[in-house]
Parts: sequence; C-alpha cells; structure tokens
Amino acid sequence: MVLLLSNADIERVLTMKDTIDALDVLYREVGKREAVSFPRQDLHVPLARPEKELAAHYLKTMGAASPAFKTAALRFSSDVCTWPLMGGLRRRVKLPVKNGKWLGIILLFSTLNGELLAIIQDGYLSRMRVGGTNAVAARYLARKDASRIGIFGSGWQAATQITGLSEVRKLQNIKVYSPTQMHREKFASEMKSTLGIPVLPVESPEEAVQDVDIIVTATNSRQPFLPARYLSKGVHLSCLQRSEIELEAYNRCDIVFINVNSPEANYTSTLFTEQEKALNMEVRDHPWTYKNFDWSIYPTLGQLVTQTAIGRTTDSQITGFINNIGLGAQFAAVGAKAYELALRKGLGIQLDSDLFLEDIHP
Amino acid sequence: MVLLLSNADIERVLTMKDTIDALDVLYREVGKREAVSFPRQDLHVPLARPEKELAAHYLKTMGAASPAFKTAALRFSSDVCTWPLMGGLRRRVKLPVKNGKWLGIILLFSTLNGELLAIIQDGYLSRMRVGGTNAVAARYLARKDASRIGIFGSGWQAATQITGLSEVRKLQNIKVYSPTQMHREKFASEMKSTLGIPVLPVESPEEAVQDVDIIVTATNSRQPFLPARYLSKGVHLSCLQRSEIELEAYNRCDIVFINVNSPEANYTSTLFTEQEKALNMEVRDHPWTYKNFDWSIYPTLGQLVTQTAIGRTTDSQITGFINNIGLGAQFAAVGAKAYELALRKGLGIQLDSDLFLEDIHP
Repeated sequence: MVLLLSNADIERVLTMKDTIDALDVLYREVGKREAVSFPRQDLHVPLARPEKELAAHYLKTMGAASPAFKTAALRFSSDVCTWPLMGGLRRRVKLPVKNGKWLGIILLFSTLNGELLAIIQDGYLSRMRVGGTNAVAARYLARKDASRIGIFGSGWQAATQITGLSEVRKLQNIKVYSPTQMHREKFASEMKSTLGIPVLPVESPEEAVQDVDIIVTATNSRQPFLPARYLSKGVHLSCLQRSEIELEAYNRCDIVFINVNSPEANYTSTLFTEQEKALNMEVRDHPWTYKNFDWSIYPTLGQLVTQTAIGRTTDSQITGFINNIGLGAQFAAVGAKAYELALRKGLGIQLDSDLFLEDIHP
Repeated sequence: MVLLLSNADIERVLTMKDTIDALDVLYREVGKREAVSFPRQDLHVPLARPEKELAAHYLKTMGAASPAFKTAALRFSSDVCTWPLMGGLRRRVKLPVKNGKWLGIILLFSTLNGELLAIIQDGYLSRMRVGGTNAVAARYLARKDASRIGIFGSGWQAATQITGLSEVRKLQNIKVYSPTQMHREKFASEMKSTLGIPVLPVESPEEAVQDVDIIVTATNSRQPFLPARYLSKGVHLSCLQRSEIELEAYNRCDIVFINVNSPEANYTSTLFTEQEKALNMEVRDHPWTYKNFDWSIYPTLGQLVTQTAIGRTTDSQITGFINNIGLGAQFAAVGAKAYELALRKGLGIQLDSDLFLEDIHP
C-alpha cells in the first residue's frame, strides 16, 4: 500500500515538537556522515511565451536517505517560472500549474526493501522542516535565557520560525517588522493568540532589533537588507535563507553555522539558448549569495549538533545560523515521522503498491 | 488527469520505429544543447543485514527536459542491492522490492505548465530507448550496406539491439554468441521468427565476429571481454554498456562516439561508514570503466547527429559507439511519444490530477 498524503493530512498530525525531534536525530546522522543527500538539482528550460516575458520550466529535485529513519526521500517540484521586474527588482514568480495549484511532492521509500511508502504533498511539511531546522540551530546556539524575539517578515514561513523557537526557548515577547502595516498587525494578532505572549508589530527595522535576544529573518527577499549594526552583543541571528543578510553582518558574528556546505550545497542549474543570460539576471544581481560564494568556510548544523565544531561558549558572543540551502535528508527524516503518525491515524488515500511495481527491471 | 502506464501498456503502443524517430529528434536537440539533463545521481546507504552480506539501499535518479517534446522527465528506481561473489567475480544483484517485483518509474511532466502527465513503469521503455539509441548511432556510423550482425549476449537487452538495427539497415543474417548453449539457441529461434532472416547460434566468440559488418555487445558483464583483434576493417562496434570492451579495442577504432560525456556523465555515488570500501569493490575491479575514465575525449551521439563531429568517411574505417551511460532526456523524448500513443488508444489508469497538486507552495 502506498499512502497519498495531502498538506491537510500532514497538518493534522505533524507537530513542531515532532519535527524538531526528528531533525535533531537527523543532524546527528548528518554530522556523522551517515545520512546522505545528493546535491539539489535545478533544471530550467526556457519557454517561448506569447507575451515575450522571461519564462522557463523549472524541475527541482532533492534526494537523500537516512539510516536512522530507514527511509529515503525524493522531493521534486515542477513549475513554470517567470522573472518579472517588480519595483525595479527582478523577482522569481512560480506560476500555478492549473486550478491555482502548484506541484510539489515528496516520495518516501523504505530503505529496508526499497518500497514506496508514501506520496506526500510537500508544502506544509517543507515549511515545518525549515522552521524546525532553524529551531535546532537556535537550541544549540542561542543563549539559554534567550526569550525576546525580533522577526523580519510576516509571511508564510515566519509563523513556523516562531513556533519552532518557542519549542527550544521559553519566549517572553516578540516584535515583528514587515513593510506593510496590515501584514505585521495580522501576524502579531495571530501569533499572540497561538503562543499567549505579547507580540508587538513595530514600524521600523531598528525597533525590531532593539532589546531582543534572537533576530529572525523570514522574508523572501533576494536582496540583503540586514546590516551589521543591527547585531548587539549576545544576540543570535537566525536566517531563513542566505540572501537576507549583508555580508558584513555575517562577518560581525563571532560564530556562524550553515545548513549545508559543499559538496551538497552545489546545485546544478542548466540553461541554454539566448534566454540564458536574461534568466541568470537574478543571480548576477547578488553574486555572493549564490553559488559563487564559498560556503565551505562555515561549519554546518550537523557539526554543531555532534559537537565536532564549537558553538556558543559565552553569553556575549554573537551567533548566526544561515539556512543557506535545503537538505534532502530533512524530507527523509520529517517525512518518516509524518508518515508514521498519519498511518497510525488512518489518514490519506491508499493506492495499491502493485501500481508502482514491475516484474522486469532494466 | 495523470495517466498511470504499465510496461504492458507501453509494449502495446511503442514501436521501435517510433522510439528511434523520437531519439533522432532528441539527439538533434542534445547536439544543439537545447535538451538538458542533470547528472545521474546514485545514492547508496549501507544496510546491516542478518546474513552479513554486503547490501545497500540504492536510489537512482535521472532528470531532463526536452523543448522539442515539451516534456520533462524524472526517472527513479529504489532497490536493495547486494554484491555477491559469483564465479570469483563480484556482481551487483538488485533484490525485488516485494512480490518478486521491482520499483522503477518515469514521471513525465509538461514543460508548458508543469503538470504531471504520466507515471510510467520504466522497464519496457528503458529497454526500447537503449536499443533505439544504439540504432541511431548505427544509422550514422555503420556502413550503408551493413547487413551481417554478430551479437554477444542473448538476454533481455539483446533483442532490442537487433530490432533497433533492423530499422536502420537491411539485415541479411545474424550470428549470436552466448556462453550457455540453451540461451543462444532460444534467442536465435526467437529472433529468426521475429525478423524472418537466418539467425545462427555460434559456439565461440571468434565465430561471432567473422564476416560480419556490425558487432553488438549486449551483455551485463562488468568485466571487459572483447579484444581489439575481433575488429576487422569496416566493422561497426555497437556496445550496450561501457565495461564490455577492452581498452585496446576502443583504441583500435578509427572513430568512437559515446552517448554522454561530462558533465552529464558524472554521477554521484555517496557511501559512508565501514561498508564503503567493500561496496566500492566492484568499482575498484575495473577502474577505467567507471568514473575515473575521462569520457570527454570522445565526441557524443548528439554531435554525430548534428554533424558537429565527423562520423564514418570511408567504408574501411572501424567505428564504435559506446552507450556509456544513460541520458535522462531519452525518457523525456521516448516517454512523450509513448504517452501520446497510449493516450490516443485510451490505455492506462486515470488518476485525478488534483491528488498531485497543492494550494500552497514553498
């Protein structure tokens, strides 16, 4: 039996605590080089579109296996991307496949016999593993008494950054900055109701970083916006992605950890024809945030969790964690946990295993 | 609608002629660097098995897109492999997942909107694209009047090597050598009935290569067995895989083409822990056949088809084609053709597209 699990199924069973626990086990394996991932593959082919905008089909894959969870995972998405100019900046927009919906799937396999266990929509689980990963990093890097959060961003990923941190530290209050007043107020109201602690929308970036113990960036900015001067003694900086922070802010940290360094951070993006240069424009705007940057100068979360690289040693140090690129093995670990919980609750649609099995093999 | 297609469905609709036609179009694109593939990824994690044999879970992925066919393909397999010693040689054996069946799938996407078009069992289609690829090479490399075939191997892949060649040259007769008498006789009988020409089982390798125009190797040998002296003036050598031919035989060819050179030929095989050395044993036995060999010294089939590298110019030259490693884009092209034919005939099982779509995206 192959279990087809929707985002709604995963949301019903997967808690942030489960996610963090699974990732903590996983990063021990990663640090011991027992869980393995192959490099993320980004494959683009340019599309000629009538409106003459830049467009490409984008197939993304990540694959990995975790001996601890006895699972392998293959995650993929298939989209048409465009790169419109918005406010002078080129942004990537993923168009819906059909009916306003996107295609992103995790295939979960048993490593014991190779069978396909589940086909899982990737959206909810992916967001949880991002929040959970930054939380695991904060567990080992933030001051033990860290309780005050300043967060940039009020979107889809911001909430799980906060709920993740609430599992690893006893939070007292939160400040949120987002350029749009309505967004930050809505986010503050929702998080206050979720966590039962004061959540204050603030009107400037400067306010968001004053008197806080953890600064979180949870934006989709492809342009660095957080300067070094925002980082006070003792703070922990938790970044959702690699392009939010100015390079001088990285350098101001006493200790920086990243999610993945080479070779796993290297990814392939294959583009040809005339559109290539145009499609690369986004990359050329901020070269250091992309593949020209040598991530191998920083130790990884796996090394932090296994204590093969040293984390915070004093309360006055500034620490940073950059979730620089996703790791396929996160899906093998959190996917296994979600599958186990969904199976126990009888969720999902059951498909006959034989549909995915063949009596010949190449 | 997502179409679930079995090997039986593909066998009902996909002819060798269709396969070769699709691959001919594809290799034009490959030669022009318009169709793109990412490197094949081989991911192993060692398994502790009670019987203490070498074993690993093996996740293999290939991905590609073809603008001509407006498709992208992601092919994957999930197996447990063992490496038993057989007759003094270490061979790789893929264990069935369950019920004596294996797991190998091609996901076919539309590049126009990203949607999943089909989930296709990979066995039959894979064998056809291998036979078809060697046939496309022979179309451009073998002498125009080549009609006599000598083939090594009588297994699963040997038949499609022959039917492929029969589409690109007018065949007169075939000799088949295989160490087991019963196997070569059965193969000869079956091919004679399929093609309606004489097919002679022969008792020695030397007989198989005498007075023939095309020598085909279609074995699963991981050890080179074909020496240079087997290659007479004017012959075309067509190899199913890279490890069948002694290096001196490659060197005896006046012209050698391969399927894929770097970077696409590079593949990742990630192994850790104590079992690593043992699992690598197969690779260490024949290092030049694997990734230490620099394939970039040879031009590719894409260059041959687009005439950006020169093929046969005289009847006396010895030519060779080595299907050194599979190319993901073959599945985008042949998969598109098979899907189109199956759709027209109403084959397969229809699944609701919405099962694979989500209203959020990471």
